Amino acid sequence: MQNEPEVVVLRLGHRPGRDNRMTTHVGLTARALGADRVVIAGEASNPKGTIEDITGRFGGPFEVELTDSHRQLLRDWDGAVVHLTMYGLPIQDVEGDIREDHREDHLLVVVGAEKVPFDVYERADYNVGVTNQPHSEVAGLAVFLDRLFEGRELDREWEDADRQVVPKETGKQVEPVDEE
Amino acid sequence: MQNEPEVVVLRLGHRPGRDNRMTTHVGLTARALGADRVVIAGEASNPKGTIEDITGRFGGPFEVELTDSHRQLLRDWDGAVVHLTMYGLPIQDVEGDIREDHREDHLLVVVGAEKVPFDVYERADYNVGVTNQPHSEVAGLAVFLDRLFEGRELDREWEDADRQVVPKETGKQVEPVDEE
Repeated sequence: MQNEPEVVVLRLGHRPGRDNRMTTHVGLTARALGADRVVIAGEASNPKGTIEDITGRFGGPFEVELTDSHRQLLRDWDGAVVHLTMYGLPIQDVEGDIREDHREDHLLVVVGAEKVPFDVYERADYNVGVTNQPHSEVAGLAVFLDRLFEGRELDREWEDADRQVVPKETGKQVEPVDEE
Repeated sequence: MQNEPEVVVLRLGHRPGRDNRMTTHVGLTARALGADRVVIAGEASNPKGTIEDITGRFGGPFEVELTDSHRQLLRDWDGAVVHLTMYGLPIQDVEGDIREDHREDHLLVVVGAEKVPFDVYERADYNVGVTNQPHSEVAGLAVFLDRLFEGRELDREWEDADRQVVPKETGKQVEPVDEE
């Protein structure tokens, strides 16, 4: 989020076509819940377009990048690396340390699709389980970000939006945003 | 969860084939994060099978049901109905009231796919936005459940599992569960 060290989500294992929707949901979740950027490994121009379209309409800042060399990103990353996996340490036991690291430095959060290569487990400073049950990388990312930011992400400001939702008890209200 | 009023997730708008993976993720997230049951409206035998398979291996209790009359379930539901929607009231403003309701009574949590019929907005006691941004019903459900249970779901016990993950700093460890 603005005025904090950067949080970047790295999406691994994207299979074009098959994973388009899951990868789009990973990216939109990253944006909505306070990350600054998503980097997708592989051929993901379709999810990239959808996420950028939402950012154009509902605001940012939020960036989407594609990479064919995620190993380099992982190797060169300056800051802590968190890998979300059902095999990792319980989030409730490590979130305090991760928050501490993020106060000082950028954070890279890795989410896989199916199998994640073993070198990612080794490179990660934290292998973190949002439960040790099989569920969804989208759900894991969402709970992780909400806990990392301790709910601050729910109040973030959006820049350059051309529309915004007005929260309602019942029904839908969307209004245009006039920026000076 | 065991020893608490029931939490049931109702998945609306499932389109067979197209939504199989998202609906599966909704169900697995519901299970992993403390709900007792998922009810899927429509033809969803494929997601049902996957979710039951995971429950068989990693434990329960957790139930999966299909319905072709979700209107009846909504009408007859005895307890509060929460509808997760980007148009609703901010979760941080209403979660306290919902927790209070759930202390006394069962809770039905509705998540849609694409368009949700207007009568659901009207029937809901709470239309709740996990942000007012477009992202993912899986992410919204995950954050909602984590806040509803205030993290208790991360420590829930699993019954009748035949295997369990042993949390590890690095790598993967799964062990068989011997129950007496």
